Amino acid sequence: MHQSISELQERLLEISDLGYAGAVLSWDQATYMPSAGAPARGRQRALLSRLAHDRMTDPALGRLLDKLETHAAAWPADNDDACLVRVARRKFEQAIKVPAAFVARRATLSAKSYDAWTRARPANDFATMRPYLEQTIDMAREYAGFFGPSDRITDPLIDRHDEGMTTASVSALFANLRRHLVPLAKAICEQSPIDDTCLRGPFAETPQLEFSTRVIAAIGYDLQRGRMDKTHHPFCTKFSHNDVRITTRVRLDDLGDALFSCIHEAGHAMYEQGVEGSLVGTPLGHGVSAGVHESQSRLWENIVGRSRGFWQHFYPELQRTFPAELGSVPLDTFYRAINKVSRSLIRTDADEVTYNLHVMLRFDLEIELLEGRLAVKDLPEAWRSRMQSDIGVAPPDDRDGCLQDVHWYSGWVGGSFQGYTIGNILAAQLHAAALEAHPEIPTDIAAGRFEKLHHWMRENLYRHGAKYTPDDVITRATGTDLRIEPYVDYLKAKYGELYAITFP
Amino acid sequence: MHQSISELQERLLEISDLGYAGAVLSWDQATYMPSAGAPARGRQRALLSRLAHDRMTDPALGRLLDKLETHAAAWPADNDDACLVRVARRKFEQAIKVPAAFVARRATLSAKSYDAWTRARPANDFATMRPYLEQTIDMAREYAGFFGPSDRITDPLIDRHDEGMTTASVSALFANLRRHLVPLAKAICEQSPIDDTCLRGPFAETPQLEFSTRVIAAIGYDLQRGRMDKTHHPFCTKFSHNDVRITTRVRLDDLGDALFSCIHEAGHAMYEQGVEGSLVGTPLGHGVSAGVHESQSRLWENIVGRSRGFWQHFYPELQRTFPAELGSVPLDTFYRAINKVSRSLIRTDADEVTYNLHVMLRFDLEIELLEGRLAVKDLPEAWRSRMQSDIGVAPPDDRDGCLQDVHWYSGWVGGSFQGYTIGNILAAQLHAAALEAHPEIPTDIAAGRFEKLHHWMRENLYRHGAKYTPDDVITRATGTDLRIEPYVDYLKAKYGELYAITFP
Repeated sequence: MHQSISELQERLLEISDLGYAGAVLSWDQATYMPSAGAPARGRQRALLSRLAHDRMTDPALGRLLDKLETHAAAWPADNDDACLVRVARRKFEQAIKVPAAFVARRATLSAKSYDAWTRARPANDFATMRPYLEQTIDMAREYAGFFGPSDRITDPLIDRHDEGMTTASVSALFANLRRHLVPLAKAICEQSPIDDTCLRGPFAETPQLEFSTRVIAAIGYDLQRGRMDKTHHPFCTKFSHNDVRITTRVRLDDLGDALFSCIHEAGHAMYEQGVEGSLVGTPLGHGVSAGVHESQSRLWENIVGRSRGFWQHFYPELQRTFPAELGSVPLDTFYRAINKVSRSLIRTDADEVTYNLHVMLRFDLEIELLEGRLAVKDLPEAWRSRMQSDIGVAPPDDRDGCLQDVHWYSGWVGGSFQGYTIGNILAAQLHAAALEAHPEIPTDIAAGRFEKLHHWMRENLYRHGAKYTPDDVITRATGTDLRIEPYVDYLKAKYGELYAITFP
Repeated sequence: MHQSISELQERLLEISDLGYAGAVLSWDQATYMPSAGAPARGRQRALLSRLAHDRMTDPALGRLLDKLETHAAAWPADNDDACLVRVARRKFEQAIKVPAAFVARRATLSAKSYDAWTRARPANDFATMRPYLEQTIDMAREYAGFFGPSDRITDPLIDRHDEGMTTASVSALFANLRRHLVPLAKAICEQSPIDDTCLRGPFAETPQLEFSTRVIAAIGYDLQRGRMDKTHHPFCTKFSHNDVRITTRVRLDDLGDALFSCIHEAGHAMYEQGVEGSLVGTPLGHGVSAGVHESQSRLWENIVGRSRGFWQHFYPELQRTFPAELGSVPLDTFYRAINKVSRSLIRTDADEVTYNLHVMLRFDLEIELLEGRLAVKDLPEAWRSRMQSDIGVAPPDDRDGCLQDVHWYSGWVGGSFQGYTIGNILAAQLHAAALEAHPEIPTDIAAGRFEKLHHWMRENLYRHGAKYTPDDVITRATGTDLRIEPYVDYLKAKYGELYAITFP
């Protein structure tokens, strides 16, 4: 049996290493590659995907899993090997359903579409992206089709990112949350707007990046086992247990952009850096789902990084970094500015309250596109109309409308947005559980000490990687499955105080 | 037949892409990877190498070549497909003769030896490196043994880098060149030394890199299809036809280091960028040999980049870049400083005249080590004695003696040095041929126009990639096979003028 587990691990390590090698190629493409290199790079990434896919669909792997499963039934459910067999089976079944030729075609489309988007978005050129998006949607449908009949075509796409969730369960969750968010947003937007001109600078790039680097190092991102680079769209990627990188972008006229995107990506990276080393190189060796992953980026970015205590500690240092710009701006003015709620166009710039409305819009439009109720050519108008009705503001162009997010233009439509809101909900739920264990965490944070919160997350979440299902790991950590109450309470308390509103 | 050629191309493209993917991983390791990532990265690179090797030794590839060769005999010798079959056969035979177990053993020794060397060199600790070097020599002998009987054990090692050359032919060539170089160096070193303090700065890093970038763009390195980064040791690497990168290093107290290493690597890169796109992704899609490749780095670095005309054009701009440091230094002083000849210890810092003596010393000692006439324990003393007699100066320690070059300590003894001097010789021969076709090239260069020289090289050398053998491509380009006269004439003319010596 030991020999079979070793064989399984060896096979999975090779698959994992092909994935990590592909991730290096993608990272390079986003950070440093001259754009002329895109066609060959797409082909090379497709090759690595295909080789990984070939190995993941090797019938010998299926036979090995069959053999191991006869024994695994007798092992304790939380035994590492038992979990490995269970998750490897899920991955194997997912992989054998998808033909290698499809995987290669999708990787090629993905690289070409992303490359085109990097030019089309600044040029406000939706027409160029339309055929790419149509092909991407066709391929998403084709992908969903591999997974046999499901209630909704989007179900397999959602389950792929957030195991255990369905179109129906997410829709119900979002409807429930929406009932709280809409009146909350409305009440806030009726108040006189917060003045956030103190964030407009201009702030020089180098000190912005240096300050952000000090912040993410302080909260626990290990830069000896990672690094930060600049890209169009910030992301976190992993090449091994000891090489987990993040990227950011800088706007001279928006101090929050680099700063909060760094903290956000550092949250993802801390999760990946915290996975038990012995799990890395297997399908257990990374965060368990999009939603749970996002709980960590949102926890550190918002619940921690936009808290008053956090800035009690960091604001004096930020003032020293930008004495001319912030020297005479009081902490309270800055704190209010970074938590300003407004009807805005860009999801990634949105505040905590309206952010989820942006996500719900995308989640719903994705379903309509995939279910054929919305044509790609009508997307810009559908986007504008939904923005107007949900957020109360409509984009003047596609650049700040339906072209704004990289997701749809880098190969995936379906299932890739709900995780952001699930993450917000889980962030509050996990934070509440950590505070129940360590009520002194807010005081610690106000003194610049993040170890207790980081340690709780590492022990209760990070180290497990994908060993347990999302539901299971959340229940183990917090005592219940996903619930919106801690998040709604958090928003009401924080924004009630900020806007002097008493919410029911 | 067309179908078989397509199959061959597909197989070779996959091998090529695995190599390019491995090159991205190596580039990242040298440029940006946190050092904690090294063990996993080593494993990932080894995986990609093994996958490429498996494909290169696939018996089906051998059968495909057998089949194609029966037809290729009837094709014109300079037909692309005929050349592809010939070169693919050479690569296939090279690959199948070396057992996979040997490749793995050598990779392990190589990594361990290199790692030990990075500490042993600064510690001046030859004793630690002795067993590694002994094993490396044993493995080089074993490697040579796979290629059947040859006149000299070093023959297959030399042929591997410089096809068509043998121990005897290189020795004869070097003996011939040496007869000119020794009196030349002696006569120059008897003159009063040139003052090169104007290069000592300190010069700030950013303007050094910006100036170097403008220079390499001007000579023809296409930065839209490449880029430059910093590494410990400069190198050039290729990921596709449209992504050929270089690296450099910067010393604040040596203006020439970044500048000339950039021009040197840009020479390699222009060769790779100039290969006909249709050949890239096959074994014809890159420079043909170590010596021919080096001819381009040395041509652009030395014959062009250290010429008076080149600086007539660029020196005013360099002075504007460093007004405080160079504003009052005359062009002639700068030109003499960058061409200073001296008896020095380090090959990579050596001038054009003595450089080849450093190479010949290594070439001869390699042969003696491999043929068993020199024991590793006696290497430091042999090095010192040869330095004294050839260069006229002996290293005070092994750090600046036989430990200075990475080559022997990263897994290869034999064949890896002769290319540097062959490159110098060919650079002058190719340059002379280009000038015969376009006598206005020197005038062009003094006016900052490099297109005519670059175009001649692209048409006569670069575009062919490895389609012809080194001998063949040189004969096609220059009308004769390799000859030293243009190089000797070049050195005599340039250094005769610089040092006011009349050479016979």
